[in-house]
Amino acid sequence: MAPVTNGRYVFNEYPTGYPVIDKTVSYDATNTIDLWNVPLNGGTLIKVLVLSIDPFLRNRMDMPDPEAAFSWSFKKGDPIEGYGVGVVLRTENSALKKGDLVYGLYDFQEYVIWPGLPANGISRVLENKENLPLSAYVGVAGMPGQTAYYGWKEYASPKNGEVAFVTTGAGPIGATVIQLAKAAGLKVIASAGSDEKVAYMKSIGADVAFNYKTTKTATVLQKEGPINIFWDNVGGETFEAAIEYAATGARFLQCGSVSTYNATEVYPVKNLTKITVKELHIHGFNVAGSLATKYREEFYATVPGQIARGEIKYKEYVLRGLDKAGQGLLDVLTGKNFGKCVIIVADE
Amino acid sequence: MAPVTNGRYVFNEYPTGYPVIDKTVSYDATNTIDLWNVPLNGGTLIKVLVLSIDPFLRNRMDMPDPEAAFSWSFKKGDPIEGYGVGVVLRTENSALKKGDLVYGLYDFQEYVIWPGLPANGISRVLENKENLPLSAYVGVAGMPGQTAYYGWKEYASPKNGEVAFVTTGAGPIGATVIQLAKAAGLKVIASAGSDEKVAYMKSIGADVAFNYKTTKTATVLQKEGPINIFWDNVGGETFEAAIEYAATGARFLQCGSVSTYNATEVYPVKNLTKITVKELHIHGFNVAGSLATKYREEFYATVPGQIARGEIKYKEYVLRGLDKAGQGLLDVLTGKNFGKCVIIVADE
Repeated sequence: MAPVTNGRYVFNEYPTGYPVIDKTVSYDATNTIDLWNVPLNGGTLIKVLVLSIDPFLRNRMDMPDPEAAFSWSFKKGDPIEGYGVGVVLRTENSALKKGDLVYGLYDFQEYVIWPGLPANGISRVLENKENLPLSAYVGVAGMPGQTAYYGWKEYASPKNGEVAFVTTGAGPIGATVIQLAKAAGLKVIASAGSDEKVAYMKSIGADVAFNYKTTKTATVLQKEGPINIFWDNVGGETFEAAIEYAATGARFLQCGSVSTYNATEVYPVKNLTKITVKELHIHGFNVAGSLATKYREEFYATVPGQIARGEIKYKEYVLRGLDKAGQGLLDVLTGKNFGKCVIIVADE
Repeated sequence: MAPVTNGRYVFNEYPTGYPVIDKTVSYDATNTIDLWNVPLNGGTLIKVLVLSIDPFLRNRMDMPDPEAAFSWSFKKGDPIEGYGVGVVLRTENSALKKGDLVYGLYDFQEYVIWPGLPANGISRVLENKENLPLSAYVGVAGMPGQTAYYGWKEYASPKNGEVAFVTTGAGPIGATVIQLAKAAGLKVIASAGSDEKVAYMKSIGADVAFNYKTTKTATVLQKEGPINIFWDNVGGETFEAAIEYAATGARFLQCGSVSTYNATEVYPVKNLTKITVKELHIHGFNVAGSLATKYREEFYATVPGQIARGEIKYKEYVLRGLDKAGQGLLDVLTGKNFGKCVIIVADE
C-alpha cells in the first residue's frame, strides 16, 4: 500500500495571552508514513484514535525558563503533546499485540511509533472490560477523572454535612468532584460559566449552582458558606473569595488556576494572611505527581465500573479531526466547551 | 492600707499603619485599687508581674468588621490584652491559693480581678519545678514556644537532610523553630533584620543566616535551596520567594505575616499557581487553634525541662514598667527588639 498522510498538530511560537490558530499552532499535512513498511526497530506503530484537550496544554506553551533544570514547554516545530488513546497496528514489542488499546501521552499526530511503552507511570494497555467509549479514557476514566479521584481521596477529608465549593463544575474534573462530594454527604456549591452548565451541575447533584459570569462568587459563598472544602481549578479572584468565606480548618485542593493561564496581569490576592487566622490547609497536587503511585490501580479497578453502571456521569464536547485541536484548545480556554473536550482523530 | 495606683495601658483608637504612642494607645494612672478590701465575689485578685509583647497585638488594633459574628479587636477605652504571668494576692476560689503563679491572657493592668480561671484552654497555674524566670513563661515556654512546638510537630514532617527556611529567626518563635529543625537533622536557612540577629541565629545552630534588609531572600534561597520546609512569620514578598524556591512537596507553616500587619498596600504575590505545580502543602495555624488541645500538656511536660537543661536556648528583650508597653510593641513591629519582648510590670 502507498504511504498515507500522517497529519500532525504543530507548535510554532510562544503566545502572549490566548494561542492563535495558524500562528501559535497549526495543522500540518505534509508528512506521510508507510504503515506496512516503516521500520519499528523493536517498537510499536500506533494509530491515534482519541486525543484530549486539557487546559494544561496552554501552560506548556509558556516560554521555557532558561534557568530551570527541566522545562516541559513545547518545542517550536514539534507536535504538541497530550493524553490520548491509540490502537496498536504493528509491534515488535512482546508486551503488546496488534489491536491493543493504549492510553498514554501522545504527540498530536495520526500515527506514532513508540520505542516501548513509556515508563512514565501513565501509559497502560486498557482492558476496557466495561466496553466504555474510548473517549471516556481521556476524561472521566483518564487524567481528569484521576485528578478528581486522587485529590479528593488524599486531601478532602469530607465530614457528613460539610460544605464543598467546586469550580469548573461542568468540566470533567469538577463534575466528578461534585459527584464524589455528594456521595460523601456534603452540601455542594458549584460554579461554571454558562446557564446550561449550571443546569447540568444541578442534574448531577450540586445543591447550589451558579454562573460565575453573571453572579459574583463572593456573594454566593457569603450566603451559602462558610465552605469546608474548596476545589480550586480557577485561582485568582475565586481563590480570594474562597479564603474569605472559608470555615476554620478548611481544606483547599489546588488543582489548577485556569483564570491565570492566559492572563497578562496577575490578580493580587489580598487576604493571604487569613490562611493563618483560619487555619486553612492548602494542598497543591497534580495527577502526574506523588499521588499517582498510591491511587492509580485503585482508580482503574473502581471508576470504569462506576461509569458503566451510571454511578458516575460525564459529558463530552466532541470535535472530529486532528485539525480541530487548536479550536478545541481555544474552546476549553474560553469555556465555550460544554463537557470534556475530546478530538476524535479516527474511529478505528 | 490606702488604695494604690492601678495603672493600665489603654487602647484609644484604630490606627492606620503603625500605632502611635499616646494616641493609639496610652498609659493611664488615674485608677486606684484597695488591695485588702476590694470585694472578690468568689474570684481572685492577681498582681500582674510579666506581660508579653507580641505582633498579634497589632492585629487586634484593626477596625472590627461590622459583618463579622465575632471580633477580637480591642475596644476603645479598654486596656489592651495579651499573655502574662501574675501572682495570686487574695482568692475566694478554692482551686487557687495565695502565691500561685498564673499564666493567661491579661488586661494590661497592674492588678486584675478574675471571676475564675478563664476556661479558654490557655490559663494555668504554673508549677515551675524548673525554677525558670517567669518571663520565660510568656516566651520560649509560653505562647511563642507553643506556636513553634505545635506547628512543627503537626506539619513539618522533617526528613533528615532536608532544608528548612525560618523567618524571624531571632524572635522567640523562629529561634525555637531553628533549634527544633537542627535537632531533626535539617539544614537550616534563617533570616532576621540585623547583623547581630544573624550572629545570634548562627549561635543557636542556623547553617545559613542572613539579614533580609541587606540581602535579598530570593538570592539566598536560589543558592541554598530548594527548601522543603518554610516557617513563615512574614508573608508577602518572602512568601513569594519561598514558593519560587520550594522543592516539590514542600510544607509551608503559616504562622503569621508580620510584613503585612502595618502595610497599607498588599504585596501582590505573583506565583500562587506554583502551589499546584510544585504540590505544596500550606498549613495555616495559630496557637489558640485546633492544635492546643493535642499538644499543650506534652509541651508543658517537655519544654520547660529542655530550657532548664540548656537544650533550648532563648533570648529576651526586657522593658521595665507597664508604661513601656507601647514602646515595646513599636519595637516588635519595627524589629528593633532583639529577643522576646517582655514587660516586667513588677518583680514580685
